[in-house]
Amino acid sequence: MDTKTAREKLASHQKRTSAFLHAIELLNFDGATSAPRGAAPARAETLSTLSGELYAISTSNEVNETLSYLDSVKDELTEEERRIVYLLRKDSKKFAKIPRELFVAYRAQIVRADDVWHKAKEASDYAMFAPELEKVFTMTREISGYIEPDSDPYDCCLHEYEEGLESRTLDVFFDKLRVKISPLLNEISKARRPDNGIRSGFFPVEDQQKLSRRLMNVIGLDPDHVVLSTTEHPFTISLGSHLDERITTHYYENDFASSMYSVIHEGGHALYETGCSDNYVFTVLDGGASMSIHESQSRFYENIIGRSRAFCDLIFPDLQKIFPEQMKGYTSDDLYRSVNRVEPSLIRTEADEVTYCFHIMIRYELEKSLMRGELTVGDLPGEWNRLYREYLGVDVPNDKEGVLQDTHWSGGLIGYFPSYALGNAYGAQFYKKMKSEVDVEKCVLNGNFAPINEWNRNNIWQYGKLYTPAELSRRVFDGEFDPDVYVEYLTEKYSDIYGL
Amino acid sequence: MDTKTAREKLASHQKRTSAFLHAIELLNFDGATSAPRGAAPARAETLSTLSGELYAISTSNEVNETLSYLDSVKDELTEEERRIVYLLRKDSKKFAKIPRELFVAYRAQIVRADDVWHKAKEASDYAMFAPELEKVFTMTREISGYIEPDSDPYDCCLHEYEEGLESRTLDVFFDKLRVKISPLLNEISKARRPDNGIRSGFFPVEDQQKLSRRLMNVIGLDPDHVVLSTTEHPFTISLGSHLDERITTHYYENDFASSMYSVIHEGGHALYETGCSDNYVFTVLDGGASMSIHESQSRFYENIIGRSRAFCDLIFPDLQKIFPEQMKGYTSDDLYRSVNRVEPSLIRTEADEVTYCFHIMIRYELEKSLMRGELTVGDLPGEWNRLYREYLGVDVPNDKEGVLQDTHWSGGLIGYFPSYALGNAYGAQFYKKMKSEVDVEKCVLNGNFAPINEWNRNNIWQYGKLYTPAELSRRVFDGEFDPDVYVEYLTEKYSDIYGL
Repeated sequence: MDTKTAREKLASHQKRTSAFLHAIELLNFDGATSAPRGAAPARAETLSTLSGELYAISTSNEVNETLSYLDSVKDELTEEERRIVYLLRKDSKKFAKIPRELFVAYRAQIVRADDVWHKAKEASDYAMFAPELEKVFTMTREISGYIEPDSDPYDCCLHEYEEGLESRTLDVFFDKLRVKISPLLNEISKARRPDNGIRSGFFPVEDQQKLSRRLMNVIGLDPDHVVLSTTEHPFTISLGSHLDERITTHYYENDFASSMYSVIHEGGHALYETGCSDNYVFTVLDGGASMSIHESQSRFYENIIGRSRAFCDLIFPDLQKIFPEQMKGYTSDDLYRSVNRVEPSLIRTEADEVTYCFHIMIRYELEKSLMRGELTVGDLPGEWNRLYREYLGVDVPNDKEGVLQDTHWSGGLIGYFPSYALGNAYGAQFYKKMKSEVDVEKCVLNGNFAPINEWNRNNIWQYGKLYTPAELSRRVFDGEFDPDVYVEYLTEKYSDIYGL
Repeated sequence: MDTKTAREKLASHQKRTSAFLHAIELLNFDGATSAPRGAAPARAETLSTLSGELYAISTSNEVNETLSYLDSVKDELTEEERRIVYLLRKDSKKFAKIPRELFVAYRAQIVRADDVWHKAKEASDYAMFAPELEKVFTMTREISGYIEPDSDPYDCCLHEYEEGLESRTLDVFFDKLRVKISPLLNEISKARRPDNGIRSGFFPVEDQQKLSRRLMNVIGLDPDHVVLSTTEHPFTISLGSHLDERITTHYYENDFASSMYSVIHEGGHALYETGCSDNYVFTVLDGGASMSIHESQSRFYENIIGRSRAFCDLIFPDLQKIFPEQMKGYTSDDLYRSVNRVEPSLIRTEADEVTYCFHIMIRYELEKSLMRGELTVGDLPGEWNRLYREYLGVDVPNDKEGVLQDTHWSGGLIGYFPSYALGNAYGAQFYKKMKSEVDVEKCVLNGNFAPINEWNRNNIWQYGKLYTPAELSRRVFDGEFDPDVYVEYLTEKYSDIYGL
């Protein structure tokens, strides 16, 4: 082989895998948005087959030879090519360790579990879901055993979303958050709770859809490449490349703010993806550095921007226009106080910034124990409810608002939850740096998101997966990851709101 | 090889190709429903790649060996297996004649052409679309030359939708229709035209959506397997198997009947597909016998049933409920007369039953001439407009309501249009037979579609692609295809309405 041929093979291999991933992700997206219920078994078959094809391609001798050759001439390659070869080899080696039958059966199981989760959540019936969840965890443990036979099986899950991340590190990280945020939460709970009246009332879906369009426009999403759908659980998905981004939301007619912040959150993910260099389309570099960096962007737009005083001032006139009756007698300050009302609650996606990390810690403890076999799927709801009482002091009235609320485990995303908490912390640190270069508040007040998005694009988005989270963040904030910055951000913001 | 192994290989090959077709059709469906505009180039790439994979699989030595072996032991096979082997060999041989590069480039061209068609139709700008259409016709001619080097290239197109159909046959068929329907149309045009007031007014999309749900329920579509979306041009598509049917409609707020009959038409296609034997899932027998038989079902539900007096009586109370103001002062008889108002017009999908075939004849003449190189893409709009004047006596005011109205050519469906006219005729002949066994009018009046659907399922739907259209229809109506039955149906119905 020569380098020219190997490069061509590399490009065509990536195009080929992109096509399969495009189809696979579209099948998943369609399953959550448009597909009829009775089509789930057929979709499971198709997803199994296509995953099997992708497995065969990724582990083929031809691809391995090409990658090995390119690895042997590393010095001739560009920085991008070296990273591509590294990432593809890593994936190929990982795949090769998992028996194909297991890999394929797992894909089918995820579709089944997700289908049953939808029904079980609707019926608030954990018993219906438990056997499917059991299989998901069993198979994930089995797969982890193949990929990293000598590691903690939960650490292996974490590596899916964050290279090199270990639960030891997370234990320290979450301990720090708990120790530092608990006193703040304690102080807040003694203060007067802001009024929430502005969020109560009736907000018809069609009007909320108008608000969604306005929000997508305000934060600068490109309608040629990003579209919004509705699903049971909001998410973002890239189909084939960052040229095709789908975000979703869920409308509740008794609270406009739920969908509003989902749209901004998922919009943040889509901004990150669409901001990736167009040169990376159909390569493995297309996307985000890791899921924690991804969540740093979504949670940045949702909270640091979207729940800021400036953003409330900016968007309140739109709310008045869209909901004239419902907004009567309220001001943008009411909006600001209401969307920052701190209150231990049941639902993670609706949680305020201060209690949010506790929702994550609960899931972290549970999935870690489940993966290690220290907790059974049968005992999960009880343990969930116990931890909600212990960490947040709330009683879980039913499984729909408890253990069945999130789509992650049914979708096989075990080890994903910590990304949200890490993302919060990364986001605060990026923000600190951004503020030193951009007048963020003024930009938001003027509805001029271009400088903010440009900063993120230049510093983060354009690089896709070129850098590891550690490399990327070091480049951005000239130092190490430091969750204290996040705690400072929370303390400052909420001390002000609550007059602490 | 032994027969047992060959059978297993056959099943796994069909599952594999079903998965690819599922993905390919979903990409097409998504492109027409949810995808952002700017994603079309990426979708074209993915469709090219997946089509190339499908091509490689279908023409592989392994598959050919399996099929040849099974063909050699034909006598041991079931009727179904023999048909499967025949159909797969036919496809495999056809694919193998087309160079892979051309096959793949054509798939990408279809996506581009369809994307440009949407924009061109919106702008009523034929010049924008012409270069893409030119490429579609050139590539189709080229492909036809490979598949059937000794045939008329248009006949080769016809074979995509109807095995063995030739333009000679169609020339005779259309001549007969023209000669026999023209005098009827002439008589009708001298009679008093029914009032159309019931269809004018304002019909909000949300209310029409309610009507759609009611219609889908009335005709007996299974919501577990059939869902409705909205698109520029209504269509039906099966995703992977008949377990996942998507139908689409287009709402016009100034005429509820347009979407109403689209829903019933596409619903007819979906009834046919979902009525196929479940044993045929993931086999090449899943689906319909041919496109003319398919259209016989869609046009049967749309017109013979949907535009019958009994159906108007059945559905009018629903219209009154959904559109109380708009229906004030009208009766179900007004509905019946209005939806059967005969009037030469511009838009095929909106045409009444009597003028409908003329719309098809125009397209038939044009695509035949284009495929034979007797007409250029540049001259197409002029010729379109000339034929509308000649056949229907109407002046085409712009290309949006003229040559750009249909999605078929941009989607590569050259040779499809005759299926609609053949379908009308098949439908009338099936109906004649059905009436001798089922009290259709009474069933419709009572909203009891089960006996009608059962008859279609028993006689037509369950067989999928097991029989050719000729075999199937001979089984159903114990005789040959006879378009006179259709002419009789039209003459009887419209003589009554127009008092001829």
